[in-house]
Amino acid sequence: MPTDSEPTTDPLVLFGQRLVQLRKERGWSQEQLALECGMARSYLGGVERGKRNIALLNICKLADALSVSPDEMLQFQED
Amino acid sequence: MPTDSEPTTDPLVLFGQRLVQLRKERGWSQEQLALECGMARSYLGGVERGKRNIALLNICKLADALSVSPDEMLQFQED
Repeated sequence: MPTDSEPTTDPLVLFGQRLVQLRKERGWSQEQLALECGMARSYLGGVERGKRNIALLNICKLADALSVSPDEMLQFQED
Repeated sequence: MPTDSEPTTDPLVLFGQRLVQLRKERGWSQEQLALECGMARSYLGGVERGKRNIALLNICKLADALSVSPDEMLQFQED
């Protein structure tokens, strides 16, 4: 039976977790990331919560803002 | 001055090239890939030509069909 602590396999949630991780590694708030990548903070919040099916151009914009390669954005944690 | 042989930096084109590469490594036609991933062949053609801003869920569906991890889909060739 699934529990709250069971790792998710939802790619949108995994991407959101990865984004939070990369953002926090830089010590950035959502506001700071929003400024760096030119997206709305509310949109980024939805992405981080796994509520948005983000498209490739925005994935690459985030990678650029975070100074990682696009594929690093999709290196999800296997808990 | 840009020429036809100059490498592109358009993420949509780079993704399309990567998809063609992974598909051909498997010896698959676009029709075969369409069957494996459950997307329309015409849509995949647009993705391969860099005309579609494909979203994360479809990137992950393609990764699954091609038996690669999602991040491998974004390992673009640096020509």
